[in-house]
Amino acid sequence: MPSSILTVPVRRFDSTVHVPSLSEEQDFLAVEEPLQLTVRNRDLAITMRTPGNDAELAAGFRFTEGFVRQSSAVVDIKCSRNCAAVTLDTGIEIDLNGTARNFYMTSSCGVCGKTSIEALENAGCTFLPRGIPRIQESLIRSLPTKLRESQAVFDRTGGLHAAGLFSAQGELILVREDVGRHNAVDKLVGRAFLDGRLPLDDYLLMVSGRTSFELVQKAVISGIPVLAAVGAPSSLAVKTALRFGMTLIGFLRDDRFNVYADTGRILSSK
Amino acid sequence: MPSSILTVPVRRFDSTVHVPSLSEEQDFLAVEEPLQLTVRNRDLAITMRTPGNDAELAAGFRFTEGFVRQSSAVVDIKCSRNCAAVTLDTGIEIDLNGTARNFYMTSSCGVCGKTSIEALENAGCTFLPRGIPRIQESLIRSLPTKLRESQAVFDRTGGLHAAGLFSAQGELILVREDVGRHNAVDKLVGRAFLDGRLPLDDYLLMVSGRTSFELVQKAVISGIPVLAAVGAPSSLAVKTALRFGMTLIGFLRDDRFNVYADTGRILSSK
Repeated sequence: MPSSILTVPVRRFDSTVHVPSLSEEQDFLAVEEPLQLTVRNRDLAITMRTPGNDAELAAGFRFTEGFVRQSSAVVDIKCSRNCAAVTLDTGIEIDLNGTARNFYMTSSCGVCGKTSIEALENAGCTFLPRGIPRIQESLIRSLPTKLRESQAVFDRTGGLHAAGLFSAQGELILVREDVGRHNAVDKLVGRAFLDGRLPLDDYLLMVSGRTSFELVQKAVISGIPVLAAVGAPSSLAVKTALRFGMTLIGFLRDDRFNVYADTGRILSSK
Repeated sequence: MPSSILTVPVRRFDSTVHVPSLSEEQDFLAVEEPLQLTVRNRDLAITMRTPGNDAELAAGFRFTEGFVRQSSAVVDIKCSRNCAAVTLDTGIEIDLNGTARNFYMTSSCGVCGKTSIEALENAGCTFLPRGIPRIQESLIRSLPTKLRESQAVFDRTGGLHAAGLFSAQGELILVREDVGRHNAVDKLVGRAFLDGRLPLDDYLLMVSGRTSFELVQKAVISGIPVLAAVGAPSSLAVKTALRFGMTLIGFLRDDRFNVYADTGRILSSK
């Protein structure tokens, strides 16, 4: 098993078979972990990535973001777990202002020391209330159609991600779309924030794409107890959902779905 | 037409109809533009987003990234074209170290003043050589299967994006996978960079997802003349490809594809 894949238990809900099945099986997840990029002992960026080929990623990021132009400038790249430190030829000047985009981020939290999940704990996030709201399995299966019908009005491009906020009774409350899935969620949570409706502890969030750490983090901080996605979750998305007691649903389509964390809120129709 | 959608001319190649068709039509693109987020006149972040609901995005980003916790703290959000400036209650302290993730970026280029494309020009990117390499239409249609066959070995998760580098003769040279599509491209370009093979001016890049500005930028800076994607391009992806003379292909699947910029490298099989 390559280090880019993690095996986790998953509970599958499938209404397409004659008798609805509810089985616990093993599933494969894409591993997502932070990589801290440093150059000359200076933090340059943190990117969430799949481990493997980290030296290539460090080199490629620096090149495609305009930090270095010649491979001869790179003397050495040291990778250790979630850090990649580049040593440049001493004659090379790095002009951060001359980069293609201004992309560097500070990282005082230090991914290398403190984990992404711990950073969320430090931001005051706590365990979501257990077992509430209770959601019917059939209600979950109805979400994609509702989101798609709403999205079809806006998205003639095939290029927009959607985020939909649903009540615990399955009513679509709010939809936002964006080229960036994180932006669609930020717009939706931002609306609720401006309306003074946070935390969203009686709501479900559904997204059109895959689920990364970033999306689970945004849902956790907003108090959302159930996050469902059309696509696959990453390993860190699942770990974060487990840590904060969020119900995390993936591959919600064609009348099926997988639950990767906390089935306790789901009422099976069996 | 909402401001989140842009209409552009597109050339469709379709081998599934009896006589292969090559038609120029109109297509709808999701608009992608940078939004500069500032708070107390301090640059906080730049995000590439679809215009619309910018105040919500600004509020949501600040909340979900842990900068503010109470809606009463936000006195005002002023949005003008691609900037959103938040005014906080003077009593509110912002603790950048206490954020959920350390996410703030500097933005000395100033999205508000200088455009993303100009930033690429300033990084030394120039127009890609016209008309080379020449690529057979049928070769382009063969790319998805080759990429998928290669990816199937690795991706049992449904959660990994793939980037494949192909020779002008259609040979798959290199594949990289990652939860982040930009990382998959960075790993691939990083390998070529470390091997001293840049610029990649005789190669095609194929990606498994959609095409954003970020991916086109990374391809332009690497000298890649042809970028093909399974999904849709954004408006800024197309604008950038047009500016630098890159052949940009979208919706490459089921023996069809659309060309959004520079058909001059494609030899039609008609």
